[in-house]
This record gives sequence, C-alpha cells and structure tokens, in this order.
Amino acid sequence: MSHTAELIAVGTELLLGNIANTNAQVISQSLSALGINVFWHTVVGDNPKRLKEALDIARRRADIIITTGGLGPTYDDLTKQTICAAFGKPLILHPDILENIRAFYEAALHVPMPENNIQQAELPEGCAVFDNPVGTAPGCAFECGGIHVLMLPGPPHEMETMLRRHVEPYLRKLSHEVIVSLDIMTFGMGESSVEELLHEKMALMTNPTLATYAKPCEVRLRATAKAATEAEARSMLFPVRDMVYETLGDVVYGVDVADLAESCHAQLIRRKMTLATAESCTGGLVAEKLTAIPGASAVYRGGVVSYWTSVKADVLHVNQSILDTYGPVSKECARAMAEGVRKITGADIGVSVTGAAGPDPDERGTPVGIVHVGLATPEGTFCRSLDMGRRRRDRIQGLAANHAFDVVRRYLQGLPIEQV
Amino acid sequence: MSHTAELIAVGTELLLGNIANTNAQVISQSLSALGINVFWHTVVGDNPKRLKEALDIARRRADIIITTGGLGPTYDDLTKQTICAAFGKPLILHPDILENIRAFYEAALHVPMPENNIQQAELPEGCAVFDNPVGTAPGCAFECGGIHVLMLPGPPHEMETMLRRHVEPYLRKLSHEVIVSLDIMTFGMGESSVEELLHEKMALMTNPTLATYAKPCEVRLRATAKAATEAEARSMLFPVRDMVYETLGDVVYGVDVADLAESCHAQLIRRKMTLATAESCTGGLVAEKLTAIPGASAVYRGGVVSYWTSVKADVLHVNQSILDTYGPVSKECARAMAEGVRKITGADIGVSVTGAAGPDPDERGTPVGIVHVGLATPEGTFCRSLDMGRRRRDRIQGLAANHAFDVVRRYLQGLPIEQV
Repeated sequence: MSHTAELIAVGTELLLGNIANTNAQVISQSLSALGINVFWHTVVGDNPKRLKEALDIARRRADIIITTGGLGPTYDDLTKQTICAAFGKPLILHPDILENIRAFYEAALHVPMPENNIQQAELPEGCAVFDNPVGTAPGCAFECGGIHVLMLPGPPHEMETMLRRHVEPYLRKLSHEVIVSLDIMTFGMGESSVEELLHEKMALMTNPTLATYAKPCEVRLRATAKAATEAEARSMLFPVRDMVYETLGDVVYGVDVADLAESCHAQLIRRKMTLATAESCTGGLVAEKLTAIPGASAVYRGGVVSYWTSVKADVLHVNQSILDTYGPVSKECARAMAEGVRKITGADIGVSVTGAAGPDPDERGTPVGIVHVGLATPEGTFCRSLDMGRRRRDRIQGLAANHAFDVVRRYLQGLPIEQV
Repeated sequence: MSHTAELIAVGTELLLGNIANTNAQVISQSLSALGINVFWHTVVGDNPKRLKEALDIARRRADIIITTGGLGPTYDDLTKQTICAAFGKPLILHPDILENIRAFYEAALHVPMPENNIQQAELPEGCAVFDNPVGTAPGCAFECGGIHVLMLPGPPHEMETMLRRHVEPYLRKLSHEVIVSLDIMTFGMGESSVEELLHEKMALMTNPTLATYAKPCEVRLRATAKAATEAEARSMLFPVRDMVYETLGDVVYGVDVADLAESCHAQLIRRKMTLATAESCTGGLVAEKLTAIPGASAVYRGGVVSYWTSVKADVLHVNQSILDTYGPVSKECARAMAEGVRKITGADIGVSVTGAAGPDPDERGTPVGIVHVGLATPEGTFCRSLDMGRRRRDRIQGLAANHAFDVVRRYLQGLPIEQV
C-alpha cells in the first residue's frame, strides 16, 4: 500500500519571507527515497485557528502528516497543543524528558533551564518520542484513525538530525519496499552536458532510476532502486554506477561522498599526506571547508589567508618581483603562494587560490572571474587558470574553492591537473 | 481594507525535494512590505486535479492568489488551463505575444520556436499581461468575484523580474497600508532569556509588533509597523528600538545589519582600522565570513589558519614555552596568536580563536567546547574564555567565530571585552 504525505510547516517567519521552507525540501527528498508520495506542502503562521484548518484539510487527503516548527518554549509555539486538540489526544508531562532538557541546559549550555521550557516535556498520550540530541524540543509521532501525525522541530539542523535518527526508521516500517540510493558526484561538467551524455539511458530507466541534481558548481547524480530487500536493491545500483563512470570519465570524483572537500580529506588520509592552503580571493573558504570535517587535523596543517598583497610577500614569501611583474592575480603568483605555504607549514602539498571575485575588477584591472589555482607537490608545481566570467561574488568564491579541491584530488588520483 | 494572500507553487520537482520553494520566500517578503497578509503557502505537483483542489481551498480563504510555475510549453504545464477552467475564463490567443515569443527564440536562443510554445501566447480573457523579458512565458492577472488571481513563471529569475516590474505595481494599487520593519540584532543572550526580558511588553503590542527569531548563535528581533505612509510607520518603530536597547543593553550589536561580521566590517571602515585573523578551531571561518563581504579588502589584511601546533610556532611565532607550558588551547596561546598575526600582517587589530571543536577532546585532553578568543590592539591584548559545552562541531565553530567578531566590535565600540 502506497502512502500519501502532507508536510505542514508552522511559522510566521516563513510567511513573512524571512526564511525559505528548506525543511520541506529535505523531508521531501527523504520521503521520496522511502517510496512515500508527497502531494502537498502547506505553510501556516503561528496561529492556532489556521493551523487547525490546515490539519482538517490535511487529514482528509493524506495519511501521513508531518509538521515542522512551533515546538519551541515561547508563547507563540502552539503546534503540539493545536494538534492534540484536533486529534483528541491529551498532553502528558514526561518527567524523564524534562530531566533531559534540564540536563541539556546545565551540562551543555551551563545555564539553568528557563521555566517556560517545561511545556517542551509535554507530549501527546501514547506517542513515540523522538529525542533531540542537538536541541531541547523533542519530536513525536502518533497514529489516530489510520493517520500518522509526526511533529518535528523547526530549526533545520534539529529537524534533520531527528529525520535521520527517528523519522526515517519510523516511516520505513510503514512501507513494504526498500528503496536504496547511491550518489555519484561529479565536478567539472555542466548539468546540461551531463544530461546530454546520459539522457537516452536515463529516459529508458524505470527501476533503478537515475536523476541529476545541480548543486552550486557541481552535479550530483542519484541512482535509486526499489526492491524487496536492501541487498537486492543495492545490487541493482552497481551497473548504474559503472555505466556513469564509463560515460562521464574522470569528472566523477566519488560515490556517496558529501563533497569535494570530503573526497580530498579521505584521499589524503589514504595517501598519508598533509595539505596546506594559501588563499586570496576565497578568503579562507578552502580552509573552512576542510576544517568543517571532524578529524581534519590528521591531514590539514593550516594555511594563510593572504588577502593583502603585503601578506603574500611578508608571510608567504612570494617574491616581490613576481608581484611587481605579473601582479597578485597571476599564474606566477599562484605557483609562488602554493610553494610558499608548503614551505612555511612543512606540508606535503600546498594549494593556492588567487583571483578577482568581484563585484569590481581588482586594482590592476583584472576582470572579475579570473582565478588561478596553484598546486605545489613533491613532484613539482602546477597551475590551473580559469575564467569564470561575471558571476556573483559568492559563486566565484565557491567555484574557486572547488577547483582547489579538484586539483588536489586529481593530483592524488594521478589524473591530469591543469586542464579542466 | 487589508488583503489576504495565498501563494500556490505548482511543480512536482518541489514535492520531490529537488528544489526549495524560494519563490514563496521572495514573494512573501515583497507582499509583507506592501502590507498584504500572506497567511498560506501551498505547493502542489503538476497535477490538474490537485491544483483545482488547492484553488478551491484558496478562493475560500484568500482574496489574492498568486501561483508560480506550470506556465512552460510542455505537456505537464497546466496552471493556466486549470485556473481558467476553475474561474470560468476562456483562453485567448494573443498574436502580439506569440510574435514576442517567436522573436525571443530567434534573437536570444538562435533557434526557431517549437510549435508547443504557441500555448504560451494564450491568456485568460480580459487579463493584465505581465511580459517576461528574461524568458518566454508571460505572466498575467485577472479579477473574478473580488478575488485577484496572478500567475507567474516558476524559474526564480523570471519570477523575480516579473515581481518587481509588474506584480508589485499591480498589488500596490490594491493596498492602502504600508508595512515597515526594523531588525534589531543581538549576540550573547539566548532566545528564552531575551523573551523573558521582553515578553510582557511584546504581549501588549499590536502595532508595532516585536518578534524574536533565533539564528544560529544569535537572536534577531524584528519590529514591524503598519501605517498609511512609510514615514509614519518608520516613526512608530523608533520607540520600539529604544525600548529594546534599554532592556537588553549592549548585547544589541546593530540595527538593520545582516550579521556580526558585517557589523564589524562597517565599524572597522568607520574607524579606518585594519584587522587580521589567527584561527585554530574555527579553521578559516572568521576570515571566510569577512571576505564574503564585497569590499572586505579595505579593512581585512589577511590571516593564518594555524591548525597544527607547529604552524602556531613557525608562522605566528607563538613562543614554544607557551605551547609547552599552557598548550595550544589556552588563554596564553590565544593572546600570543593574536599578537603574532597582528605583527606579521601589520594590521591594527589581531583577533585569534583557539579551542576544542570536537567531536573528541584535543590531544592534551581539553574538553570539547573550551574556546579562547584573543584580541591584540594598540591598547593591549585581551582574552575571552568560553566553555560552550558538548555542542556539535559546526555549532562550536560558528559560535566561536561570532565571539571573535563580538570582541572586535566591543573593542571598537569601547565596551568591556573579556566577559560575555
């Protein structure tokens, strides 16, 4: 039996446009992967009358209702009360949950729990409790007259943690099919080119399926198979993965890896090599992405953000004649930055980025979008030069950072480095 | 008379989670500013039966219905047909629009117009036409029984161009009120504490209103006023701002500023001072947030990501005896890092962050969440020490980066620096 879900996001900040309803996107992806049809997204404000209306509509057309938001401790957080009234469920205080919330405040935040957090420990009678390891509001689920109602907190990282830990296992039990997905990650080819190469094969596929998702600066391919068991579904995905590798070649940088930074990190660990970064136009973004990974210190020694030209000379020891002759945005400077940071940190590999991220050309008139990525290795120094055109500043920075990771992973994989 | 709007987004890609409904956010911001209440967002797939249902619900509860998506030339683009059937409006072919579409294909895309684009030139009888300078599908609006129905294309840049050029002028004529908001930004006090201090006053307010929004690591307060003119609405907000300043004190770091990084950037420019960063556990995040701001080079010289202890010694010249005696996560090291980066870059101010971001304690057993923020200035060196507890790695990094900006802005504003 196939289920139909409606997602109801509760929060006036969504209706005012302060934030986008990204929770609906994340939950929808997850439900699609579980074979549950999401037919409706609804957003209502922090208003019990309109939330009640939304619930009345949803229960007529869906058998899974998932709400996000309105579980906080403040007076306008009314989701639980409104849902319990609509479904005739009393709210019960859970002393153990209250203890957890109190402990979270004291142990993690080092402050006493404010009294208005008590209501977060009240949950519908007989519900399954979804604990919240990264916040205070627990989530919950109950079934009433064939309708499953799930309540999740609004802050995206709390919602997503709970989704993976509790919601997906809860919903998986409602389904008799197993759906398994595989993410094939590519960098260096646009979405339309990827689609052009794969289009005919994709059009013929029904199970498994293959879909493309353009992330900023890269394309993710998701292969999805449905079967009676996980092993069976998984075995159906291997030929798809192989077909994509054969069709796209070395633009594929990994399977089931989050991004290029994580792929680099894993390969550096495998090769037992260390990395250092020298960044100008990316301003620390490459370093930040690497150090966001737990355990980064095993492979990442550190780096320099040489934003001013004087820092390139004084800290990275880029030769003044290079800066005078070619300027700070040049192949020569990128190479010298990579060599400099490799030397001062003692890392095996130094990677550098220098360019004009805009919105205006640099002081020497370098057009926005010109970026050079340098790579200093035990085997010599390389440089990849790019013209990204007049994109937005954050796009140029993000794309430049990805090129830095791409030259490192190509070096580590023994692939050509300088061309794109 | 106050209007009530519902936004209906049409597109199966939204329900599959392939994209987020950012159109709803952009339109909501625009409508809020025009004094139109947005009470509902709905998303339905490319399915005429369910779109018809959504329209039937929307026309009972809203007097402005704005749809996005489903105006394309393909067989699953059915918004116009479904709306016209629901409101009893015939579709009329507009030869001039057909000519525009044909010209767009030939001039901009250099291909002949496919025949299925003809339906894009069919619009509801008697509608206002919204031309689309950046795509082929025109939008439109009509009024029927007191309900205004507006149809906009789905691609965000087409939608947004049409919103500014046509939809805002169309809706402005319907409204007699102006809404103005003011964002009051705070750092260093939790959302529940902010609410506890302001709750009584907030509960009594109807116009202007005051609401809190917890962002990661900070709390934004939004004051909103409705009035007949913008000047009148704006003047109603000043007493609210003053009341918040008086109640919360110097945790308020700015008004109508995006975040602490932007606030620091603005104050550095005002004071004509330059900054450098030395980061360990934040791994470049402070640098990255600063350099995300266009024009950062006016005040930001650069920095060092001293992830390995050897980089603290070799590049930042932190005294080996400090590293041996107190360890890299210590007040003493934070101070030396700030002084070191100030010296090697020649900046007026050096700010540093060292700490244990987790998930595991550092090699010397420093518990996760211990963070020291150093500040080296012409007036001397300061240090703020924090115990953030066992939060998630990215939370500790984000909060630590915000503390770095907070010590800088407090120094620039002449406020106490070391306590929180």
